[in-house]
Amino acid sequence: MEGYIWLNDSLIEAEKGRISPFDRGFLYGDGLFETLRVEGGQPMLLERHLRRLYDSAKIIGLERVPEQSWWRRAIAEVIGANEWVNSRVRITLSRGLGSGDEPTRMIHGRPLLQSEYLPEPIDVVVSSFLRERSPFSLRLKTLNYLAEILAFERAQTAGASEALFLTEDGYVAEGSVSNIFCVHSGRLWTPPVSLGILPGIFRQLILEICSEESIPIIEDRFPLQTLKEASEVFATNSVRQIIPIKSIGGDAIQGEVPGKWTRELRELLQNYVVEEER
Amino acid sequence: MEGYIWLNDSLIEAEKGRISPFDRGFLYGDGLFETLRVEGGQPMLLERHLRRLYDSAKIIGLERVPEQSWWRRAIAEVIGANEWVNSRVRITLSRGLGSGDEPTRMIHGRPLLQSEYLPEPIDVVVSSFLRERSPFSLRLKTLNYLAEILAFERAQTAGASEALFLTEDGYVAEGSVSNIFCVHSGRLWTPPVSLGILPGIFRQLILEICSEESIPIIEDRFPLQTLKEASEVFATNSVRQIIPIKSIGGDAIQGEVPGKWTRELRELLQNYVVEEER
Repeated sequence: MEGYIWLNDSLIEAEKGRISPFDRGFLYGDGLFETLRVEGGQPMLLERHLRRLYDSAKIIGLERVPEQSWWRRAIAEVIGANEWVNSRVRITLSRGLGSGDEPTRMIHGRPLLQSEYLPEPIDVVVSSFLRERSPFSLRLKTLNYLAEILAFERAQTAGASEALFLTEDGYVAEGSVSNIFCVHSGRLWTPPVSLGILPGIFRQLILEICSEESIPIIEDRFPLQTLKEASEVFATNSVRQIIPIKSIGGDAIQGEVPGKWTRELRELLQNYVVEEER
Repeated sequence: MEGYIWLNDSLIEAEKGRISPFDRGFLYGDGLFETLRVEGGQPMLLERHLRRLYDSAKIIGLERVPEQSWWRRAIAEVIGANEWVNSRVRITLSRGLGSGDEPTRMIHGRPLLQSEYLPEPIDVVVSSFLRERSPFSLRLKTLNYLAEILAFERAQTAGASEALFLTEDGYVAEGSVSNIFCVHSGRLWTPPVSLGILPGIFRQLILEICSEESIPIIEDRFPLQTLKEASEVFATNSVRQIIPIKSIGGDAIQGEVPGKWTRELRELLQNYVVEEER
């Protein structure tokens, strides 16, 4: 906890940050978050992240969420005070003390690691946790994040970099902190949101790019075996963007890593992200 | 937030309580809690609650959890400082800042309401949230409690007092803050833990009492229709103990409420709880 964070109405030193232990974010996980990538001092895809935040807040009845301009300014203050060029920034929004009280608003982050800028191929383990359909009709990015964080840390302990969640029926759902794509039989696949996965900002962007570029992509469920037989596999998230995968549960992906489609999408993506932020 | 709470190493005024916003309980819901009933200044079934807390902590790898004697003393301090006779007390334990840091330990509560001492029959609504098998093989009482708290509050907004979760297949799972029992065709039923429900301390106590008193009880799944046709329905939790249910989704339970079995179990239960605390 070094540097500066934004907490509620002010920029403060991170180590001086304090909240009430009666904050509903702490008592119940009653809140939301977004994690985004900052490049050259600019938060990427911020509008999309905030849109998801507002939509989710509406679903859980979290009111008095600040406007876009407020978040933009606060994020800029944090980036400026920390003198970050490339970084990852997290927005945390909890219901505060509840009963119509103002929500707790926090912005913190850290510089982007070199390994996060253009990630090298990673190893993935299959988590023993299963992914079920969420209690919410659409899966939200709430502070109820224990299963994800435990699965992610167990993967790291096992020497891998990401954990893969399957559904109870054995279909590939998502990574603990990423969405999953693969190329099988010459076509691009990704699991559908209906499996109860988080509709990732970057996952959505890739679907849109595929649509615009006339790259066929199949949003349908597939078993773990399909993933292991795939000629290319990659994960996506907002911070690390496209992350090539080189092995799953100890089985190496056959073929070049990163593969042809992965490299092509990476190139296309950079143009789209830059375009959107102009 | 009146009165006194215990936070980490000291008894403090509730409104002066502060934690770091980097507490993993706040960032990820990375922690556990227990809620218990205090009668005549004595926490009820504390040993059972602490056993569940220790077992759960082991599963999620939360270390440096204080010993029983520590909790007993801290709880007694809070009860004493607040001059509570009958109350509900919550233990909150989060991973703190992580990386081997001491966990955050909090004890807070409030006096028991008259309506909680020997609860009157309540109305229950059926939640639109479904209960799935948990990501953990055994369901834990973690700070990931958003679905429960939202369902409970929506029930209250609808004029009811509890929300009922069904499984995806339409079986009765549990209440948002309680376990469910019913009497159907002259036999007592309760849903099995294998449905992904929280193994409630009071649910377990009732199973044990039934075993000792040779009262047959069926731990098996049953659909909502069975519950609506039941001659008696009740919920259990550690604070309100046995809570008679008088209607489900607007349909009144046919028969006397509280029914014969409910009243008999209430009587038996008091003896068992008192016995155990001696």
